[in-house]
Amino acid sequence: MDKASFSIHEGKPIRCKAAISRKPGEALVIEEIYVDPPQPYEVRIKILCTSLCHTDYTFCKLDSGPLARFPRILGHEAVGVVESIGEHVDGFQLNDVVLPVFHPHCEECRDCKSSKSNWCARFADDLLPNTRRYGMTSRFKDSFGKEIYHFLFVSSFSEYTVVDIAHLVKLSSEIPVNKAALLSCGVSTGVGAAWKVADVEEGSTIAVFGLGTVGLAVAEGARLRGAGKIIGVDLNPDKFELGKKFGVTDFINPALCGEKKISEVIKEMTRGGVDYSFECVGLPSLLTEAFNSTRTGSGKTVVLGIDKDLTPTSLGCLDLFRGRHICGSMFGGLKPKLDIPILVDHYLKKELNLDSFITHELKFEEINKAFDLLVQGKSLRCILWMDK
Amino acid sequence: MDKASFSIHEGKPIRCKAAISRKPGEALVIEEIYVDPPQPYEVRIKILCTSLCHTDYTFCKLDSGPLARFPRILGHEAVGVVESIGEHVDGFQLNDVVLPVFHPHCEECRDCKSSKSNWCARFADDLLPNTRRYGMTSRFKDSFGKEIYHFLFVSSFSEYTVVDIAHLVKLSSEIPVNKAALLSCGVSTGVGAAWKVADVEEGSTIAVFGLGTVGLAVAEGARLRGAGKIIGVDLNPDKFELGKKFGVTDFINPALCGEKKISEVIKEMTRGGVDYSFECVGLPSLLTEAFNSTRTGSGKTVVLGIDKDLTPTSLGCLDLFRGRHICGSMFGGLKPKLDIPILVDHYLKKELNLDSFITHELKFEEINKAFDLLVQGKSLRCILWMDK
Ligand SMILES: [Zn+2]
Ligand SMILES: [Zn+2]
Ligand SMILES: [Zn+2]
Ligand SMILES: [Zn+2]
Repeated sequence: MDKASFSIHEGKPIRCKAAISRKPGEALVIEEIYVDPPQPYEVRIKILCTSLCHTDYTFCKLDSGPLARFPRILGHEAVGVVESIGEHVDGFQLNDVVLPVFHPHCEECRDCKSSKSNWCARFADDLLPNTRRYGMTSRFKDSFGKEIYHFLFVSSFSEYTVVDIAHLVKLSSEIPVNKAALLSCGVSTGVGAAWKVADVEEGSTIAVFGLGTVGLAVAEGARLRGAGKIIGVDLNPDKFELGKKFGVTDFINPALCGEKKISEVIKEMTRGGVDYSFECVGLPSLLTEAFNSTRTGSGKTVVLGIDKDLTPTSLGCLDLFRGRHICGSMFGGLKPKLDIPILVDHYLKKELNLDSFITHELKFEEINKAFDLLVQGKSLRCILWMDK
Repeated sequence: MDKASFSIHEGKPIRCKAAISRKPGEALVIEEIYVDPPQPYEVRIKILCTSLCHTDYTFCKLDSGPLARFPRILGHEAVGVVESIGEHVDGFQLNDVVLPVFHPHCEECRDCKSSKSNWCARFADDLLPNTRRYGMTSRFKDSFGKEIYHFLFVSSFSEYTVVDIAHLVKLSSEIPVNKAALLSCGVSTGVGAAWKVADVEEGSTIAVFGLGTVGLAVAEGARLRGAGKIIGVDLNPDKFELGKKFGVTDFINPALCGEKKISEVIKEMTRGGVDYSFECVGLPSLLTEAFNSTRTGSGKTVVLGIDKDLTPTSLGCLDLFRGRHICGSMFGGLKPKLDIPILVDHYLKKELNLDSFITHELKFEEINKAFDLLVQGKSLRCILWMDK
C-alpha cells in the first residue's frame, strides 16, 4: 500500500494540542483536543507552522456581538500537510503540502469563473462560521467533549485542523513552509491590492497609509510593478528604514505635518496627488485623507483596513465627483488557487521579498509571547513552529 | 478675399440679444447686450440653437454662496458657428460648426494626454468662472456697460458668446444641429458613464436610478453595449414606456416596493445584484441603495447626480469591503474633442438614439416656457432656436 494513501488516524478523531481562546481578552490556553475526521469536501491537515495577524487578536478580545464566539481555535495563516481526506475530494492527496486560506475559491460558481471577481458566490454571505459545506457543526471537541468554534475556515492554532477544500491551496515543495505561511493572509492581501485591485503600473505614484504587514506588502507589490514613488505614511519613524526593504521611497510622519493635512503634503510631493492610495489602518479619518490624496480625474483608493467600530465611510460629494474611485476588496482581489502559485513563483525567482516579513520565530507553546510582540508593534510576522 | 476668413464684426463688440438671469429665482429677461471680440485662444460663436438642463435651473435659483453670481448668462448645451477667431487659435476656422462643452480638453496637459483621465489639469480647480485663460473678466456687457457673468465656459442663452478653444469641438456638418446640441452635456454624460466609466459589457446587468436625460442616456449607452438587463428606477410610472426607447427592460417604482428596499428588489431580480448601478438623481439615500444593489465582489457604482446640499456620501464599511467599487466622474469620463466625434458617428450610423431626447422645440424668446416644461418634468430636452 502506498504510504501516501494511508493514515493511522483515518476516519477517527485525532487527539492533539491546540491553543484555545476560552474567554474574551484572556491569554490562550494550550489544551488537548480532539479533531474529527474530515467530512465530504474536507481534508484534515497537520499544521507545520502558523503565524498570527491582528485579526486573530481582534477576535481574541471580542466580547460582544454575533462574531464573539468562545471557546474558539483562532489562527488563519499556516502551512500544513494533508493527513486524511474526506469524500468527493479531488486534487489533494495525503502528504500534500497545503496552504489554508480564509478566503474561498470553489472554482465552480459564477464568480469563481469570472475574471472580474474573487468573491466566491457560494460563501459570500457567511464569513465567520465553522466548517460549513455540510452544516455548521464543529470538527473540534475539548477534553470534556464540548465543541470548540472554528475561525475563518482555518483554525491553525492547533496541531491538526479540518479545512474545506475550497479554502485550500496546494503548494510547491520548493518554497520553505514558513515563507509560504505568509501567503495565507496579510502579504497576499497587500500584494494583491497593488496588483489586482489597483493594477499599479510602471512609473505610477502610490501612497500607503499604515506600514504594518499589509501596507508593506502593498509597497512590495508596487515596487515589483515598477512604481515611481512609493510614499509610506506611519506614526512610527522606524517604519521608514523598514519600509525601504519593501520599496518605500518617501516617508510621511503625520505627527510632523503641522497644520497641513497628509493629503496636502502628498499633493505637493506629487504635483497633484498620487495615482493610487491604500488605507491599511482602518481609521475613517485616515481613509478620507487617503481618498483626497489621489489625483483628480483618475485617482483610485483601495480600502484595506476595517474600522473596529465599523464606522461608515464618508466621502465628500464633490471630492467623489472629481473622477476619483474607491473600492474595497477581500484577499487583495486574488483567487487563492490561481494566484497564490504565482506569488510562490515570484518568491522562488527571488523577486518577491517574503523573508523580511518574518521578524521572529518561536515554538507553538510560546504563542502568547507572539501575541505580545504583535500587539506591542515589535513584530511583523512571528512564525510559530508546531514541532520545535 | 475668402468669405470664410472675414466677419464684419471682427475685432469689434457685437450687439445682440441674450436671456439674462438678473436675480435668483426670477424669470430670465431678454435684453440687448454687447459681446466682446475673442481674446487669444478664444473664438466668438453665433449660437444656432441651445437646450437647457437642470444645472441651468439650479444656478438660476441659487441665492447664496460663492457660486451664486448675477447678472449671468446661463446655458451650456448648444451648437454654433464660428464668427471670429482670437490669436493663437489653431484648428478652427470661420463658419465652422462647433459644439461648446463645459468640460475642458486642452489636449496638452498630463491628464489630457493620459488615457486614464478626462480631467484636464489646467482647469481642474476652476469650474465656474468667466472665460479664464487670460483672466477672469467677462466678454459680456449689458446696455448700461455693466459686465455680465459667464456660465460654465459656455453661456449659450445668447445670440453670440465667446468660448475658450479648450471648450470647443468641431462638428461634422452631417448631423442636424439640434441633435448635436444634446451632446454638450447630459446625453454625453450618460452614454460616457456607461461606456467609459463603467465600461459596461455585453450581457451585463445594470440599474439606473432616475430616468431623466442623464439616466436615459446611461440606458442608451448600456443598450448599445448589449447589456442583458437594464433596470430603470423612477417614481414616475410613465418613465417605463419612455425608457423602453432607450433600452430599459425592467422597471422599479420605489413607491410600490412596500417594506422592501430597492436594493433588495434588484438583488432578487438579478440573483445577487447588478454588475453596474448609476445614481442620476443626487439623493444620498438613493446612492446607498444604488451601491448596495450591485453584486458582491465585482459591483461598480457610478455617481452622476450631485446632492444639492452636497451631503457627504456614507458607505457601510463592510459593504465597501465586499469588493465593490464606487466612483464619480465628470462628463461621463469623455474627452470632448476625442469622444464627441465618436458619438456623432454612432448617431449618423443610426445606432445612438438622440432623436427621442428632444421632446420640445421652441423659439429662443420662449425660454421661460422651456424652463417651466423642464421643472414640471414635461420635457427631456427642449431645443430653443435662435433664428426662428
Ligand atoms: Zn466559487
Ligand atoms: Zn490575517
Ligand atoms: Zn488638459
Ligand atoms: Zn447640463
